[in-house]
Amino acid sequence: MELKEELIARAARARSAAVTLAPASRADKDRALAAIADGLLAREADILAVNAEDVAEARAQGLDEAMVDRLLLDPTRLRGIVAAVREIAQAEDPVGEVLGMKRRPNGMRVGQVRIPLGVIAMIYEARPNVTIDAAALCLKSGNAVLLRGGKEARRSNELLGEVARQGLASVGLPEDAVQVIAPLGREETKVLVGLSGFIDLLIPRGGEGLIRFVTEHARVPVVQHYKGVCHLYVDASADLEMALALTENGKLSRPGVCNALECLLVHEAVADALLPRLRSLQAGGLEVRGDEATCRILMDAKPASPDDYGAEFLAKILAVKVVSGYEDARAHIRRYGSQHTEAICTNDHGIAERFLREVDASCVLVNASTRFNDGGQLGLGAEVGISTTKLHAYGPMGLASLTALKWIVEGSGQVR
Amino acid sequence: MELKEELIARAARARSAAVTLAPASRADKDRALAAIADGLLAREADILAVNAEDVAEARAQGLDEAMVDRLLLDPTRLRGIVAAVREIAQAEDPVGEVLGMKRRPNGMRVGQVRIPLGVIAMIYEARPNVTIDAAALCLKSGNAVLLRGGKEARRSNELLGEVARQGLASVGLPEDAVQVIAPLGREETKVLVGLSGFIDLLIPRGGEGLIRFVTEHARVPVVQHYKGVCHLYVDASADLEMALALTENGKLSRPGVCNALECLLVHEAVADALLPRLRSLQAGGLEVRGDEATCRILMDAKPASPDDYGAEFLAKILAVKVVSGYEDARAHIRRYGSQHTEAICTNDHGIAERFLREVDASCVLVNASTRFNDGGQLGLGAEVGISTTKLHAYGPMGLASLTALKWIVEGSGQVR
Repeated sequence: MELKEELIARAARARSAAVTLAPASRADKDRALAAIADGLLAREADILAVNAEDVAEARAQGLDEAMVDRLLLDPTRLRGIVAAVREIAQAEDPVGEVLGMKRRPNGMRVGQVRIPLGVIAMIYEARPNVTIDAAALCLKSGNAVLLRGGKEARRSNELLGEVARQGLASVGLPEDAVQVIAPLGREETKVLVGLSGFIDLLIPRGGEGLIRFVTEHARVPVVQHYKGVCHLYVDASADLEMALALTENGKLSRPGVCNALECLLVHEAVADALLPRLRSLQAGGLEVRGDEATCRILMDAKPASPDDYGAEFLAKILAVKVVSGYEDARAHIRRYGSQHTEAICTNDHGIAERFLREVDASCVLVNASTRFNDGGQLGLGAEVGISTTKLHAYGPMGLASLTALKWIVEGSGQVR
Repeated sequence: MELKEELIARAARARSAAVTLAPASRADKDRALAAIADGLLAREADILAVNAEDVAEARAQGLDEAMVDRLLLDPTRLRGIVAAVREIAQAEDPVGEVLGMKRRPNGMRVGQVRIPLGVIAMIYEARPNVTIDAAALCLKSGNAVLLRGGKEARRSNELLGEVARQGLASVGLPEDAVQVIAPLGREETKVLVGLSGFIDLLIPRGGEGLIRFVTEHARVPVVQHYKGVCHLYVDASADLEMALALTENGKLSRPGVCNALECLLVHEAVADALLPRLRSLQAGGLEVRGDEATCRILMDAKPASPDDYGAEFLAKILAVKVVSGYEDARAHIRRYGSQHTEAICTNDHGIAERFLREVDASCVLVNASTRFNDGGQLGLGAEVGISTTKLHAYGPMGLASLTALKWIVEGSGQVR
């Protein structure tokens, strides 16, 4: 109960900070962002030192190296975080944007204006960069944020949060608009996600287990960010050179991210021509797990187990399947896809149109790499995550996704 | 458990119908809507007969007359429902609309396309018109809908649902896109709102108790429609003739609706001039419940109890309070408002701007009646409800609020 009261008190302080922050000018918000960027550089040595402590403890406790890599900060990565903050400062302020202002037949002017959501809670794993990214995006969009990162990043997050709060305070904005919540156990997380009336939006980011847990217990609105099981379907009409380039880029440019390619579907008419060319990727470390037809053509492919379809490998592993055509590919995607990112390689206009229309994913692409499903690449700017559910936001969530639209009416005495 | 399996089976049929309905052409959907409108007229006698049975039973069980009035259908009201269906048929199809298509620096074309949400569940009280309104809006926006109305309207809803399903079937669309769920007890409603993965959006409409119950137990995304405690603040600079007209229209044109005025806040500088003029409304049956200052000026006002502020009377009762100025009015609205509709009457440009910017409600109005917070009046067309929470939709939810935007990318082999 004490913890619940403590969390409620902090959420209430966030609510009160949000009320002050909502009408803040863009100039003040951008000055705060600049102060945060400067503060990160000024405290570089301290930040790297506490991060090294986090990393040492994580290694001592046997955290796997992929996770340690996400936890680790170094001068280059810290500069990347600083650059992201400065980029957010340069972005347009979403708050106050007026949309669709029109005059109604009775003379009233009616439109919508963008407003902050209020208090946002982020629950994420051991990636300290998310602490600053989320704080900066929420600040720019006029929202207060409660940040609950992974326990492995405890020291790093605490210090990064302190830098963010000092940046806010240095320009007279309420420092409680950014609050780092000490890592909580599962029971305590249930309390946080149950604070109905105190939190306007909850964004869980991380593994599927975390997201399911949060969704199951949330009493506040949640936008889910599930895994990315992304497919590329190579149609009979595809340019095979292009198909190979899209496969290589989708799978190998950054295997550990959610828009990486996980499964290649190949039309049977081009399987003989395309599949042997995957050898060049195998030479680069790619492991192919194929169905029977694939293994017949590409002799050094491993036989795929049923679990390989629908798997998010996040590694240099690619599931491959030969399909009889578009319908077969579409059925496979419907069954195994995660509504994240789906791509087709084709020169058939009709098939391309059908794919765009019929495939259900937050981003569907024709003749482009799955890696483009990213706020920056789509022209949104920095993103707070990629939603795989349709309510409120579907796909990359940029600054506008952290706002709502309220109706405004200017009249001269109109009545109904 | 049997009920849960039955509900899951029905939701699964809705999901499958939604997949068929999503790509349906506007022409087919509009023909289905026309068939529903025709069907309602063709079966008018049957509909009125079963509705009369519902009404008789409700009266026998002592339902209050305001509720009976909401339950009652007559030839005029049925024609109103038919007209609403035909109007929805005439509205633009939201599905397939492409927004913001732009060429990126790398040559890719990137935009967003509107798609249906999938399966929508409506939980509402004894208003049979909602059954057809919701079915028509969901059909037009390509969504399947599960309709759970109040038990008092059981017979009416069953028959109205049958007419809607026949309309769908008559043009070859899946009739399971509209399913009327027999009224459920509270425990059974918990099962329905817990069908995570089967329902994409849950819309509860009705009293605060229903909405809180649904929100508390939901495991699917909910857009809440809480009560409307709407204020009008009359500023010192107001045109008092206009202020009186806005008060009369807000309170008396239709007291039982959520955008009706519930509380009048009067600047102390104009209280002496404005309040006595409320007598003309009192003569029309208005009951004024005022604070001390109000009662001193308007002698036949009743003293307000603390509960009268923040109350949704839904009757010819108006709470009145004299305030010291804009800040005082704003603080009152923040404390007692329901984020539904808030209005100001003023000639002061600066105060008007501050009100539009600072007051948090789904619709804020300057010099116009609160009754304009309505999809039709704001130019949205028919609405499925008015959301008082910010996520996904804030304010009237029209056809576009029943859709999501998915990203589409058309490239020529681009990689990152």
